Amino acid sequence: MSKLLTDLIEALRCLPGVGGKSAQRMAFHLLERDRERGLKLADALREAMQRIGHCARCRNFSEEPLCALCASSSRDRHLLCVVESPVDLAAIEQATGYRGHYFVLHGRLSPLDGLGPEELGLAQLAQRLGEGQVEELIIATNPTVEGEATAHYLAQLAHAGGVRPTRLAHGVPLGGELEYVDRGTLAHAFGGRQQL
Amino acid sequence: MSKLLTDLIEALRCLPGVGGKSAQRMAFHLLERDRERGLKLADALREAMQRIGHCARCRNFSEEPLCALCASSSRDRHLLCVVESPVDLAAIEQATGYRGHYFVLHGRLSPLDGLGPEELGLAQLAQRLGEGQVEELIIATNPTVEGEATAHYLAQLAHAGGVRPTRLAHGVPLGGELEYVDRGTLAHAFGGRQQL
Repeated sequence: MSKLLTDLIEALRCLPGVGGKSAQRMAFHLLERDRERGLKLADALREAMQRIGHCARCRNFSEEPLCALCASSSRDRHLLCVVESPVDLAAIEQATGYRGHYFVLHGRLSPLDGLGPEELGLAQLAQRLGEGQVEELIIATNPTVEGEATAHYLAQLAHAGGVRPTRLAHGVPLGGELEYVDRGTLAHAFGGRQQL
Repeated sequence: MSKLLTDLIEALRCLPGVGGKSAQRMAFHLLERDRERGLKLADALREAMQRIGHCARCRNFSEEPLCALCASSSRDRHLLCVVESPVDLAAIEQATGYRGHYFVLHGRLSPLDGLGPEELGLAQLAQRLGEGQVEELIIATNPTVEGEATAHYLAQLAHAGGVRPTRLAHGVPLGGELEYVDRGTLAHAFGGRQQL
């Protein structure tokens, strides 16, 4: 097989979920049918990899110093939602009607991986909480062991800054059946039952 | 979401089998963890899309005027295998011990799609058969209606050039069970039974 083609197939394998066979299929597809869009993809990749940095205020991906969401005047400045990654932010934006601001940790507290308060930008977050504008800190880290530890740390930070911390509700997912829900989740759902 | 990021996600959807959700996952993965390889992919894509053309002799993808396989002196010049696409060529190379040459049609006879003998390079193939070096034309078009029609046309071409045409055997796939094999395949396998 030609060297450029082998290189392309190898390079495509950096995409998550793409193995040798899919990479080969993608390369042949682009070469045979879609060279224009292949070139567009090359440009989009280069631009994104080189020019996308982080918003100075919320640390989300942004090619501007301040992202559109932080610059917007129509978002509620009293609400701040902390997420582990930009994917979580996108999920919340797409699923909920939340109109406040965000703060992206790009990780979770994990000393073994070298991720401490500094790497997560927690000093910056503490400073922002101290500014007095934020009233509620919505902690939306993942419900994993490390995510919970991070949530605990964030709650302390909020208390120190005089801000009310809240946590996304844990419970039975919609459409789920009690019979198949794991014990931890069921215990949480039971303990957190709400008045109807 | 930032414009460059939206552009990247949209561009990634040109890959076969990649929808909105996967494209988003790929974009975030590259940005968060693998910008180096993302840039490499951009380069590989650009190089491949711009520089890969077709081998003058076999029409397979190649960045050289003559591909490595056609230029090789160790392949058997008496055997010529015709395939519909470069993927088929790659599959045959990987699965069989075939040591002859190839000819890539880049399609199959399909008048409705504007694919006639000219688009498939059949004049070039006829000329090559007329050179007198090829002894056997192995027809490996797909066993579809159009592939069979193309095979029929190729067989006539071979006869005209004084070359013996052969076709890949149809039959029961290895590991298959007779019970679940479709009727057409079973009839083929029965008719083409071989002496043990």
